Amino acid sequence: MKIGILTSGGDCPGLNAVIRAIVLKGTRAYDLEFVGIRDGWRGVVDGDFFPLTRHDVKGLSKVGGTILGTSRTNPYEGERGGAENIAKTLYGHKIDGIIAIGGEGTLAAADRLAKDGINVIGVPKTIDNDLRATDYSFGFDTAVNIATDAMDRLRTTGDSHRRCMVAEVMGRHVGWIALHAGMAAGAHVICIPEVPMSIEEIADLVTSAHDRGRAPLVVVSEGFKLRDMEEAYSDKGLDAFNRPRLGGIGDLLAPEIERITGIETRATILGHIQRGGAPSAFDRVLATRLGMHAADAIMDAAWGQMVAMQGTEIVRVPFADALGELNTVPQVRYDAAATLFG
Amino acid sequence: MKIGILTSGGDCPGLNAVIRAIVLKGTRAYDLEFVGIRDGWRGVVDGDFFPLTRHDVKGLSKVGGTILGTSRTNPYEGERGGAENIAKTLYGHKIDGIIAIGGEGTLAAADRLAKDGINVIGVPKTIDNDLRATDYSFGFDTAVNIATDAMDRLRTTGDSHRRCMVAEVMGRHVGWIALHAGMAAGAHVICIPEVPMSIEEIADLVTSAHDRGRAPLVVVSEGFKLRDMEEAYSDKGLDAFNRPRLGGIGDLLAPEIERITGIETRATILGHIQRGGAPSAFDRVLATRLGMHAADAIMDAAWGQMVAMQGTEIVRVPFADALGELNTVPQVRYDAAATLFG
Amino acid sequence: MKIGILTSGGDCPGLNAVIRAIVLKGTRAYDLEFVGIRDGWRGVVDGDFFPLTRHDVKGLSKVGGTILGTSRTNPYEGERGGAENIAKTLYGHKIDGIIAIGGEGTLAAADRLAKDGINVIGVPKTIDNDLRATDYSFGFDTAVNIATDAMDRLRTTGDSHRRCMVAEVMGRHVGWIALHAGMAAGAHVICIPEVPMSIEEIADLVTSAHDRGRAPLVVVSEGFKLRDMEEAYSDKGLDAFNRPRLGGIGDLLAPEIERITGIETRATILGHIQRGGAPSAFDRVLATRLGMHAADAIMDAAWGQMVAMQGTEIVRVPFADALGELNTVPQVRYDAAATLFG
Amino acid sequence: MKIGILTSGGDCPGLNAVIRAIVLKGTRAYDLEFVGIRDGWRGVVDGDFFPLTRHDVKGLSKVGGTILGTSRTNPYEGERGGAENIAKTLYGHKIDGIIAIGGEGTLAAADRLAKDGINVIGVPKTIDNDLRATDYSFGFDTAVNIATDAMDRLRTTGDSHRRCMVAEVMGRHVGWIALHAGMAAGAHVICIPEVPMSIEEIADLVTSAHDRGRAPLVVVSEGFKLRDMEEAYSDKGLDAFNRPRLGGIGDLLAPEIERITGIETRATILGHIQRGGAPSAFDRVLATRLGMHAADAIMDAAWGQMVAMQGTEIVRVPFADALGELNTVPQVRYDAAATLFG
Repeated sequence: MKIGILTSGGDCPGLNAVIRAIVLKGTRAYDLEFVGIRDGWRGVVDGDFFPLTRHDVKGLSKVGGTILGTSRTNPYEGERGGAENIAKTLYGHKIDGIIAIGGEGTLAAADRLAKDGINVIGVPKTIDNDLRATDYSFGFDTAVNIATDAMDRLRTTGDSHRRCMVAEVMGRHVGWIALHAGMAAGAHVICIPEVPMSIEEIADLVTSAHDRGRAPLVVVSEGFKLRDMEEAYSDKGLDAFNRPRLGGIGDLLAPEIERITGIETRATILGHIQRGGAPSAFDRVLATRLGMHAADAIMDAAWGQMVAMQGTEIVRVPFADALGELNTVPQVRYDAAATLFG
Repeated sequence: MKIGILTSGGDCPGLNAVIRAIVLKGTRAYDLEFVGIRDGWRGVVDGDFFPLTRHDVKGLSKVGGTILGTSRTNPYEGERGGAENIAKTLYGHKIDGIIAIGGEGTLAAADRLAKDGINVIGVPKTIDNDLRATDYSFGFDTAVNIATDAMDRLRTTGDSHRRCMVAEVMGRHVGWIALHAGMAAGAHVICIPEVPMSIEEIADLVTSAHDRGRAPLVVVSEGFKLRDMEEAYSDKGLDAFNRPRLGGIGDLLAPEIERITGIETRATILGHIQRGGAPSAFDRVLATRLGMHAADAIMDAAWGQMVAMQGTEIVRVPFADALGELNTVPQVRYDAAATLFG
Repeated sequence: MKIGILTSGGDCPGLNAVIRAIVLKGTRAYDLEFVGIRDGWRGVVDGDFFPLTRHDVKGLSKVGGTILGTSRTNPYEGERGGAENIAKTLYGHKIDGIIAIGGEGTLAAADRLAKDGINVIGVPKTIDNDLRATDYSFGFDTAVNIATDAMDRLRTTGDSHRRCMVAEVMGRHVGWIALHAGMAAGAHVICIPEVPMSIEEIADLVTSAHDRGRAPLVVVSEGFKLRDMEEAYSDKGLDAFNRPRLGGIGDLLAPEIERITGIETRATILGHIQRGGAPSAFDRVLATRLGMHAADAIMDAAWGQMVAMQGTEIVRVPFADALGELNTVPQVRYDAAATLFG
Repeated sequence: MKIGILTSGGDCPGLNAVIRAIVLKGTRAYDLEFVGIRDGWRGVVDGDFFPLTRHDVKGLSKVGGTILGTSRTNPYEGERGGAENIAKTLYGHKIDGIIAIGGEGTLAAADRLAKDGINVIGVPKTIDNDLRATDYSFGFDTAVNIATDAMDRLRTTGDSHRRCMVAEVMGRHVGWIALHAGMAAGAHVICIPEVPMSIEEIADLVTSAHDRGRAPLVVVSEGFKLRDMEEAYSDKGLDAFNRPRLGGIGDLLAPEIERITGIETRATILGHIQRGGAPSAFDRVLATRLGMHAADAIMDAAWGQMVAMQGTEIVRVPFADALGELNTVPQVRYDAAATLFG
């Protein structure tokens, strides 16, 4: 059997470890043959394939990024897209199935293709940890470690100057990175998309920490929105939705916190460093296990399913289980963390 | 209520994060009062207590080790030991209960004390990940990260000299650290206590990796035993059980591998660096959550139970669930990893 | 003798290691007594002193920031400022001399105070490495390591998406951090304040790297200025000097590079993480040696001088040697690095 | 011109960065052609060459080890060795000169070959920092950082158990790594080959630190020798020179310290992790600068010389300047560090 592998959407530490594990397990245990697909679904649509051997994946478990390249192409769009065209392309290249490694968009496309008769198996990928049906996804632990390390650094400079430090981390729709990195670094406020707060609530917690002699640390997800954001900013003539021009929500919060509390405040937007570089050991093990199970799933012709982590086990679930609602931070988890705020 | 906190047994990254979380949650949410107990059960027996306030736990989530000190004292031994004496000592200091953070020995003592009427709640601690009833324990992830980082380094020097590198990691009775660090680093052989191997089996895998142009990496738990160890070594006049004099099993394996394969081989015993220093973000979050739930358990008077991690949740389980058998590496997990050997 | 120690200006990894070394060497070798001065020159002016013993500096060599606090107060300003008032304040507290750890502003003030009869010895501090008379200053090596690590991460995500990554590092007036971190990370363009470039020159190098299949990495000092910046931006209605609103020069460059080259480009502003956290071993050793020599200088009554690193030696130089011109990147060093651009 | 590059002796972080810089500068600035020589002088003797292009050195600045392989072969030994044979071999492959990257043995051989008419330029390599004529050599800073990080970890576990921790670091003949890592980590005793001590002197310092409530940290170079070692150990029936069987000097010191002081003591032999993995930023910059200057030296036909770091400059020196005596730790540097012992 010949299997194509693709990575799609934003990159994530651990992608290469998944690819390596699929190829090693597949060639050694099952005598499968593999091709790499360039740049996600784009490569499927364009028939952009290349042989992927055991030699090609040597030493990849610790290498960040993806050797396959990635894109955000939708396989149902374009002239050569759609299940029928793709089936022809795969047939022409004698490719029997695809392992698609990606996030919600990728898995939704995979689900639709599977229903349209294409042999697809999925591996969930989300640095934000926003997919249901898997307890954790690789990349998340690495991102939390990087963000925590950065905040450890921000705290010492904050302490020296008795400043409030605002750290903006990834998380457009869910606050897992902020929650975990904030807990790990002992943040005094954590602001996540799931739980809107007013600037006054934030300022109160900052002041409380400062009053106890601490340099306040505020961690904020990039997708956090201030409650009543429009009103809060209309008095200073700012468009509340002009975030891009201001860098990020962190750049918007810092001056507001300083204005209200009188405490000198500085923002740092951690940005892309959270998604690059060598994966943590946890992510390498998780990615390797997912990859090996994906090779097993091929042998079982478990098309239309994805591998996932539940407890300490790797299991198979239908694509649908991971789709629809996002895996948001439950209020009870946030409330528990919030008892340590201020 | 006044609660004593103790840490017992070998130290572990995350102990201070547990202590901090108990004290912060306990004082802020429940108005509990805390005392630190010096050096584990020894401090209980000797009445060696000191006030532990919110101020004392400032900034502790990232600090390795334990500010309380630790020992391997058995609370049932000695003149002042035993449940009756301890009850008197606690009563005399108006201490209403104890949170004991420790491994199997500690939890077994806690179980016995609880049955003898002492108010004890447990927090599982094992860097080796050898306790049942909890999916993971803090310290394990940090140790795996340190070991993985060390092996990444060993591989580059192995590659330059085309040597076989042997890395001995912690794990007296179970092979979790070796399994995870070995998978993360792409080891060619992983030797764990649960799965005896002969020196010939190891040498074969080393030779196979070397033949493919790789610098073989062998990861071995300190508690690994060669199959037929006595026989294997009797021919060279060595006592198979004189490990302490030789440093570790790694020091014993390396020359044997070199003798059989003809490949230059070097051993590194990672030792105590695996248990010291700042905890990983994963361990800080886990330790913080366990500590907060231990404070909750105090309020529920859940004496005789310990907090544990199952899936993504923190739960309570009776001490007995964690005792008895060790949490060993299942054969199926080892076999899966072994498909990538050689 | 009683000596006051102060840290002034922006914080820097290694400040605490200097303080520790002064106190340990001074108390053990010379029986000196020390007081900490809070928040730089502000504490001198306000008489804000506290005893600083060997116990207080325990374990400080690896701790970022400064336990003394810091400020940008000028000792000649304010009602209680000026050499005469300061002499009275020091006399009133029986303080015989001051060790001032700081950058150009601090050392200039120290120089003036020394000429006005105050006993001052200096320790140079500059994370940017912009002071003359010392080959390196502590904090610089740590900042370069942090920036290099961040760029290693940016490269893997750049490679996966075939993007151009722009990394903005510290350096308002000199480009040492950009030069060294850029060389270490293998940057394709390095933009420093000493060498203005046009956006077209930058874009050409980006295109050249991209054409060879690389994901271009552009490193830019925060103080870099585009040649003809006003003209370049007037056509898009932007004020070339409105940097603060845009985050940093990196945020300004990225869209311009993307516009000209057609290559997707992302900026990351590393910001305050470069100046916080544990110092590198190099910086700890340098800071410890400077601190020990400052204690020696006290014994020699070498007032009006500062300690400095030249080659592998620590020497004493007059304040004036470090002041005036900045230690900029020589053109020849930049040109050498530039042969690897593109 | 066609130039061969070789790496010889023990591997060292930064070797690949030197190779990359030579090739990039040489091909881009001077249109030189390069061949890699496999496994040091062995490849010269055997004529084991392969083309080395710009593409081959892509991304190498951060990669530990050497892509060329290394060996300890002496070019004057063997049937095909000696200057005359080598001249023929190089002529046969149209190789005009060699850049030899190595330590004392390598440079001595290079010196002899140069005198015998072979075109050789040297790049000094020593992780131990034991070569004269260069202030620092790449690899040393990385090793010190790794050792310091390990000791930071050892200290937290030492503190928790109130143990004495002994850390053995590299340094067969000189104590630079021990001195710098020991200073950086705040060691209570540093034992180096240049300064013999008796076990009683070490035990006194350990006791003194312990009496002040510290967990004593002893750093020892692998080449350290106890004063009167034979006598010290004859009473326990041990052969003082049987180090290999005991692992290292650290394994020998720890039980002696425990016996004399009564303080529980544990040894850790850091071993090969000190020489592997990604180089520090300092070492990458130094290695890159040395490599670029070696390419310049080729163009100047500066045969018989090596590049070196002096202050902040890269200079050329005759091989002889680096040979003969080792660069040992001066007594004055050791004495300065020793004021912080105990």
